Amino acid sequence: MACQLIRIMRPDDANIAGNVHGGTILKMIEEAGAIISTRHCNSQSGEHCVAALARVERTDFLSPMCIGEVAHVSAEITYTSKHSVEVQVNVLSENILTGAKRVTNRATLWYVPLSLKNVDKVLEVPPIQYAWKELEEDGKRRYEEQKLERLVTKQRNGDIIFPVFNPEPYTVGYSQSSLIHLVGPSDCTLHGFVHGGVTMKLMDEVAGIVAARHCKTNIVTASVDAINFHEKIKKGCVITISGRMTFTSNKSMEIEVFVDADPFVDEPKERYRAVSAFFTYVSLSKEGKPVPVPQLVIETEDEKRRFEDGKGRYLQTKAKRQVQMQPLTQQ
Amino acid sequence: MACQLIRIMRPDDANIAGNVHGGTILKMIEEAGAIISTRHCNSQSGEHCVAALARVERTDFLSPMCIGEVAHVSAEITYTSKHSVEVQVNVLSENILTGAKRVTNRATLWYVPLSLKNVDKVLEVPPIQYAWKELEEDGKRRYEEQKLERLVTKQRNGDIIFPVFNPEPYTVGYSQSSLIHLVGPSDCTLHGFVHGGVTMKLMDEVAGIVAARHCKTNIVTASVDAINFHEKIKKGCVITISGRMTFTSNKSMEIEVFVDADPFVDEPKERYRAVSAFFTYVSLSKEGKPVPVPQLVIETEDEKRRFEDGKGRYLQTKAKRQVQMQPLTQQ
Amino acid sequence: MACQLIRIMRPDDANIAGNVHGGTILKMIEEAGAIISTRHCNSQSGEHCVAALARVERTDFLSPMCIGEVAHVSAEITYTSKHSVEVQVNVLSENILTGAKRVTNRATLWYVPLSLKNVDKVLEVPPIQYAWKELEEDGKRRYEEQKLERLVTKQRNGDIIFPVFNPEPYTVGYSQSSLIHLVGPSDCTLHGFVHGGVTMKLMDEVAGIVAARHCKTNIVTASVDAINFHEKIKKGCVITISGRMTFTSNKSMEIEVFVDADPFVDEPKERYRAVSAFFTYVSLSKEGKPVPVPQLVIETEDEKRRFEDGKGRYLQTKAKRQVQMQPLTQQ
Repeated sequence: MACQLIRIMRPDDANIAGNVHGGTILKMIEEAGAIISTRHCNSQSGEHCVAALARVERTDFLSPMCIGEVAHVSAEITYTSKHSVEVQVNVLSENILTGAKRVTNRATLWYVPLSLKNVDKVLEVPPIQYAWKELEEDGKRRYEEQKLERLVTKQRNGDIIFPVFNPEPYTVGYSQSSLIHLVGPSDCTLHGFVHGGVTMKLMDEVAGIVAARHCKTNIVTASVDAINFHEKIKKGCVITISGRMTFTSNKSMEIEVFVDADPFVDEPKERYRAVSAFFTYVSLSKEGKPVPVPQLVIETEDEKRRFEDGKGRYLQTKAKRQVQMQPLTQQ
Repeated sequence: MACQLIRIMRPDDANIAGNVHGGTILKMIEEAGAIISTRHCNSQSGEHCVAALARVERTDFLSPMCIGEVAHVSAEITYTSKHSVEVQVNVLSENILTGAKRVTNRATLWYVPLSLKNVDKVLEVPPIQYAWKELEEDGKRRYEEQKLERLVTKQRNGDIIFPVFNPEPYTVGYSQSSLIHLVGPSDCTLHGFVHGGVTMKLMDEVAGIVAARHCKTNIVTASVDAINFHEKIKKGCVITISGRMTFTSNKSMEIEVFVDADPFVDEPKERYRAVSAFFTYVSLSKEGKPVPVPQLVIETEDEKRRFEDGKGRYLQTKAKRQVQMQPLTQQ
Repeated sequence: MACQLIRIMRPDDANIAGNVHGGTILKMIEEAGAIISTRHCNSQSGEHCVAALARVERTDFLSPMCIGEVAHVSAEITYTSKHSVEVQVNVLSENILTGAKRVTNRATLWYVPLSLKNVDKVLEVPPIQYAWKELEEDGKRRYEEQKLERLVTKQRNGDIIFPVFNPEPYTVGYSQSSLIHLVGPSDCTLHGFVHGGVTMKLMDEVAGIVAARHCKTNIVTASVDAINFHEKIKKGCVITISGRMTFTSNKSMEIEVFVDADPFVDEPKERYRAVSAFFTYVSLSKEGKPVPVPQLVIETEDEKRRFEDGKGRYLQTKAKRQVQMQPLTQQ
């Protein structure tokens, strides 16, 4: 049932300091998730389908991965609702010279099976067997929670990043960046839509450029907030990925990233917002230790509001982490 | 002495209509040029060097290349000055099913040998032997011409593409586009600077997006004006490639493309203009025939001036082509 | 008739010690072979076809290739039977700084022309002209030999690699590895089946991970036993490539690699074994000299049997090599 993917990390997978891009890891996670969920959804006879990524839960990057190490990505189906599949993915990095292994990520992804004949039709998911009844109940609770959150974020999606002329250092306008990408055949699934993992890799690339422009040091992805994939992106589209800094703590930066699709060739459709997400980056010294980052200079009311929202997310995550770290005896 | 490179064209090398991107071809041309000129410049004992691309002469795309065809790229050294090498490259496409071959490009590139130990030091080029004295004289004339042109374009390089809010269809602001790229190890030569071919591929990608946004049809590269590589780009830089439409004739579009490098990690250096060039695109019907393109809507004095300049280049090229097509008896 | 392919070796083509992966070289060899044989099989008017790789003879890696060197891959057709083509490929590495060239590989590949309209139909191959009658006779002998061997290996293909929990160091379970890959458009030929070269590159990647896990040093491909491609693999499949160590001599390791295809989306077909092969690796010191490898710890009867088989192959190859190395005067 489980699905394991291994790959050696190459120079192109990493930044010049040798740290593998968070986006490279997110792309591998999504590939493993897509394979296991597509396989599961086709395991009963009936209409063929491809599992499309609907949502990725918040993901932490627990330790860096380096060029020459082997990434182990293992995926497992942990819950199925009528029309969706939950996949848990674990990532280990293995130094094959020393044999040392470290956990680098744990991620949860939600997939939806779309018919190969009619991509707007969602098929039914064959149910899985649970070892304990509690596992099913926990899965159901997670399913309801993410369903609610998906609705909320859908409304947030209208914002646009405007260009800024002659920005001052450390302002939002100073580091904001955007990238365009022409969607090619290798970016796409069998039914011609962009793999969620390809989108996440590009988002991390933009977020990384924003972070590096702000602090001009070696930066690495620390975490990604939950990402919802509301709209599919078709082969041949041009996608614009834009990022701006929203918040800085003492040692971290939060960057908001938008993905807009421009189906400009064979369709009358307008440009639309396909995905949005928050990435958190930290700045590293040459010895690989986190160092303080310059504080973000706030200029407008909107920037102030976004900074406060970012601070809220930052404090919430910090609080959650402290709870999880309490020894068992205290719980 | 000659150097030939062949490669099968894959889906990732082409647009969704199956036409190989002009940028893919430019990248292969430059790879062949870099190999032959680096080999030649190291052919005498002495300090080792890598040949860096200094200039590409105007290049026409004579016929389209398709997925599944085999590209044949052959390079030959045709002139050497004290510090530079001229390489002529021919590109054929071969349909290996029918055996049909067509010439798709003829290009002329200029390389300069830079010392591997000290990349700011230009080494001397071993002279080549000419079959006829006239070949040397012709080469010398081409060398002097390009030297002069390089000086002229260096002054043009200061312009910037400003963002436009809510642009009207068919205006310059409507289709202008920009792309950022983090320079990775596989983009670079042995001394850690970006291959000219990698830069040209990205430039063609942006120009193609500008053209497609303007006319919303299948578009292909028709020609590239001479490109001068004034400044090297180092590994780890972020490069911004921006394009805007400058001129439309009845059936063609001219797009100006700028490449700016941002050496943001380990250096105090400012962002600088590394390359600029004009690309000409045509719009194709589903049957592959050129179709009329919407006229560019001009809004400012600067745009008007650039349109007139583009018209000048267009008419000059047209006139030259008619001269070349006259039968020999009329000359 | 001949077909030559050249390419600069980039960081992503090599391991962290700078040695180009054997798989990168195998992929270039196969690309040259596919071009020359497809061209030949379409050289007479008639039904169009694509030549599909059926078999690669045992291939030795005679000397390492490094980043920055230029690979020259030249292919030539040396024999044709009614339905197959034999291609000989030579690979040279050229250091374009020093001008030094070394032979790195000589390979023999067998191709079969499959109709573009009906991929299950094998077409007839146009005969080639031989300079001497002996060349044809030798070719015929090689053809008969490989035909027999293909039959034998077809039966061996049923084995499976099972996971092992908490394996001891240096056991088979300790280093065994597997990798999954979703077959994308650029992995495929014109009729939508995976290029043999893509498969071999992935096989070498897994074998390399197994070898590095076992001996934790810089390892390089020394040779690949004959590989038979019994079953085609279609675009959209997921392939699982698994490897396990079968034998160690004093300075070499033999790794068995299996490729299983899972046509999980659009077909009712079961998972099937597509390819299997033996790779031999050596371990290198920092100075690039072969060093002893830890002996494989054998735990089961099956492992013992496979170890003995591997020893047989090792001794046979060693014997053959000694014969070939005897000076001409003794023959």
